[in-house]
Amino acid sequence: MKLYDYYRSSAAFRVRIALNIKGLEVEQESIHLRHKAQRSDAYLAVNPQGLVPTLVDDDGTVVTQSMAIIEYLEETRPDTPSLMPGDAVGRGRVRAIAAAIACDIHPLNNLRVLRHIDQVFDTNEATRNELWYKHWIAEGMGGLEGMLAGGLETGEFCHGDTPTMADCCLIPQIYNADRFGCDLSGYPTAMRINATCLELDAFQRALPEVQPDAEA
Amino acid sequence: MKLYDYYRSSAAFRVRIALNIKGLEVEQESIHLRHKAQRSDAYLAVNPQGLVPTLVDDDGTVVTQSMAIIEYLEETRPDTPSLMPGDAVGRGRVRAIAAAIACDIHPLNNLRVLRHIDQVFDTNEATRNELWYKHWIAEGMGGLEGMLAGGLETGEFCHGDTPTMADCCLIPQIYNADRFGCDLSGYPTAMRINATCLELDAFQRALPEVQPDAEA
Repeated sequence: MKLYDYYRSSAAFRVRIALNIKGLEVEQESIHLRHKAQRSDAYLAVNPQGLVPTLVDDDGTVVTQSMAIIEYLEETRPDTPSLMPGDAVGRGRVRAIAAAIACDIHPLNNLRVLRHIDQVFDTNEATRNELWYKHWIAEGMGGLEGMLAGGLETGEFCHGDTPTMADCCLIPQIYNADRFGCDLSGYPTAMRINATCLELDAFQRALPEVQPDAEA
Repeated sequence: MKLYDYYRSSAAFRVRIALNIKGLEVEQESIHLRHKAQRSDAYLAVNPQGLVPTLVDDDGTVVTQSMAIIEYLEETRPDTPSLMPGDAVGRGRVRAIAAAIACDIHPLNNLRVLRHIDQVFDTNEATRNELWYKHWIAEGMGGLEGMLAGGLETGEFCHGDTPTMADCCLIPQIYNADRFGCDLSGYPTAMRINATCLELDAFQRALPEVQPDAEA
């Protein structure tokens, strides 16, 4: 399998965690987002959205979008450790937690969005980080903490005592928020789960700074 | 079943379409987003994110997030018309199209985001619609059109010749973009599918303007 990847992409980070937990090897090809490599004709032919990650399976099947990729790996590699609960209610909860991050937090704060804000509104990086980045982290992480702290199924991980797709989404989001200097002390359940995950080799090996395309 | 709903919510619109295609009846309770009813203690106890939609199943199971709800309905109502392809590759494609809308277009342009822009940046509604709303529609719909126009599995609908979760996401997004006056002529495949869907009763009955809480 091949993964079109970028070390700092939060969505690619999710997929790297999932691959590591499942023990699946991939060839990584870096798509340099800050150099706009995602807009090359060659990459757009693979992924018309011009976003990372993209997975290309051994038979040539192309799957885009991090959550779709994780669900695809789950369905096509049933003999690997599962990232989804065995019951429909549990799967609903894991998908909801994942979406609370992947639909409601991450899209507002990714690189292309921050760049666009700086281009079209009269602001600067410091102000934009205060009024925009930190606002959506507070808004999103507050709701997420409510889902986690109030959920009877929350265990050592977001759902139960093994990692799921929800944890694959949570850890890259917290990593990103921390990098932007957000105060995360108000989300103790999320931070406890984050610490638990980061003790695991599968999460450590997915970290941006240890990827082959990582920059200083 | 009960659906916490709001007529203008694009995410709730997706779930209404899915429920109609599956022939499932729900009690609708309106959460007035512009009056901030989603922030009431009573609603936050149901959905800690303070977002719509939320589904409460007959046994009390609570499922949040539109895509998680649709997948939950799919798994728990196997005797109803399916919104997912029968093969893993097809499901991967449908989930990716749905996510291209639900993660990459919609989150940037929903009500809470537009409100926040107006509060924190020096802009006005007309400028914000030009430089922000229309920008993300063009960016997102361009990529989506590429996925649809270039996909061998695209049929009468986004995937094949019956509606899927992808169509449940597409039609509310186009409805919204049209309401904001976006030029959609550059997305002929998406617009052809939109027209096909809107001929169906299940889509018509899910339209915002025919909901019990619709306002003039």
